[in-house]
Amino acid sequence: MTFEKVTVVGLGLIGGSLAAALRESGEVGEVFGVERDSDSLSFSLENEIIDSGAREIGPAIWGSDVVIVATYVNNIAQVCGEVSGFVSSGTVVCDTGSVKAPIVRRMERGLQNIRFVGAHPIAGKETSGVRESWAGLFSGKRCVVTPIESTCPEALLAVKKLFWLAGSEVVEMDPKSHDEVFSLVSHLPHAVAYSLLGAVGSGGGERNLFDFSGGGLADFTRIALSSPEMWAGIFIENREALLSAIRGFAGKLGEIEKAVALGKVEDLEVLLREARDSGINKEKREENVRENKEN
Amino acid sequence: MTFEKVTVVGLGLIGGSLAAALRESGEVGEVFGVERDSDSLSFSLENEIIDSGAREIGPAIWGSDVVIVATYVNNIAQVCGEVSGFVSSGTVVCDTGSVKAPIVRRMERGLQNIRFVGAHPIAGKETSGVRESWAGLFSGKRCVVTPIESTCPEALLAVKKLFWLAGSEVVEMDPKSHDEVFSLVSHLPHAVAYSLLGAVGSGGGERNLFDFSGGGLADFTRIALSSPEMWAGIFIENREALLSAIRGFAGKLGEIEKAVALGKVEDLEVLLREARDSGINKEKREENVRENKEN
Repeated sequence: MTFEKVTVVGLGLIGGSLAAALRESGEVGEVFGVERDSDSLSFSLENEIIDSGAREIGPAIWGSDVVIVATYVNNIAQVCGEVSGFVSSGTVVCDTGSVKAPIVRRMERGLQNIRFVGAHPIAGKETSGVRESWAGLFSGKRCVVTPIESTCPEALLAVKKLFWLAGSEVVEMDPKSHDEVFSLVSHLPHAVAYSLLGAVGSGGGERNLFDFSGGGLADFTRIALSSPEMWAGIFIENREALLSAIRGFAGKLGEIEKAVALGKVEDLEVLLREARDSGINKEKREENVRENKEN
Repeated sequence: MTFEKVTVVGLGLIGGSLAAALRESGEVGEVFGVERDSDSLSFSLENEIIDSGAREIGPAIWGSDVVIVATYVNNIAQVCGEVSGFVSSGTVVCDTGSVKAPIVRRMERGLQNIRFVGAHPIAGKETSGVRESWAGLFSGKRCVVTPIESTCPEALLAVKKLFWLAGSEVVEMDPKSHDEVFSLVSHLPHAVAYSLLGAVGSGGGERNLFDFSGGGLADFTRIALSSPEMWAGIFIENREALLSAIRGFAGKLGEIEKAVALGKVEDLEVLLREARDSGINKEKREENVRENKEN
């Protein structure tokens, strides 16, 4: 038994899936869940996502080897504070938030009672809620942990073991780099998807444009069906990196716009080709070169 | 036999798939292919995508009931001109281009020898080339035809039959509306995808950001692997509608950017929710409402 007891606070898609994965691993004695919404809590108990649970953080979480805070990014630090009042000194606490630096910084400044480790398991689907959760969500996926100088090595190892039990490959990054990377690969695409959906939704007039979305649109709009509440929190928490990413994106779109407006087909083709090639790794690039030769 | 002979000019993904579908329908006596690239032409003959073929438009296309011009949008009108020199008066010619009004206008002004019908079968994959083609590409998909006042009704019906044989559902739109709709549901998403790929590609520094593209990025980047040459042509041909669509999109992104910069979480949440809800049809909206109740 790797862990006697693990508590998961926040039984949504991520928390619920983690809880289920840990139970299934057979390496966790007790998985305790904390969830304010009574429907979600009942569902989790009935479906053996957790062994036991409560609607509030309280004495019942005592004895946890690790507490996983899987709430929205904007209240992670606050929840960690509540947790620290009910656990023994030195209890390991990690989060699952999509933004790391602001959270890690807040946690560094306070809460001497717990040993915090920033984590971000990458496995989300667009849907939300514990009914969408499943134990295999993290299997084969990456989890980024973001230790800083003051992070306790044993705490870090405990958190890594947790995510290994869930089937993830664990990689270390510093919090700032994490946020920059994810501003580009995740947050910017989501901001763009919401903008696209908004533009198409208001641009159609009476017509339901989604009748025609055979191609590109469906892919984009799928990710914009995500939880607005969650993404608003993520965007604000990662504000600087996201704004920088948006500016970079707007610059690229502006170049395309200009070439279109001036009718410069060759310039435009070069821009599109550069964009396509800059974005793909060496392997795919070689694939494409082979394809083009065949055409 | 619905058609004695159909010629397809341009054996790429679309032309090749149409040719294959028409052969498989059993309702076309001969499918003749014209393709400049000798590898693609050989491939098409060897794989029974066409019955016979040539590398140039010439006397061999005589006797065609319909000629399908499946080249890139910027040379469709020119190719139609070449075709008209080798077919009997009144031969039906259609295209497959993703932009309609400029092509239909050009064809209206000239070429009294042929009867032109604008068409746009929606079925594209991101890949290109005849090796990616297959007879089922259009099955169950839509084909838009864009007749104008001067379009001959029998020619229109012949073209509809052609796409029915390929398995498509055929809908009529006027060319301008078609271009506005597709500027939003197809051209804008592609412009955005290229911009995103470019921004991510140049934003990563040394790191290969695509190692982290578990979520939103992969969906976007898939459509930007499309042919830059083809899309440059489409963007320019549909310039006005696309520029208008880009402006609308930039406005939405700007609203999100502003709310993020000002740290206004609630405003941002409203923006994202509106975008999500404006973009989805009534059925999905009701699904989402049920989901949210469960969370």
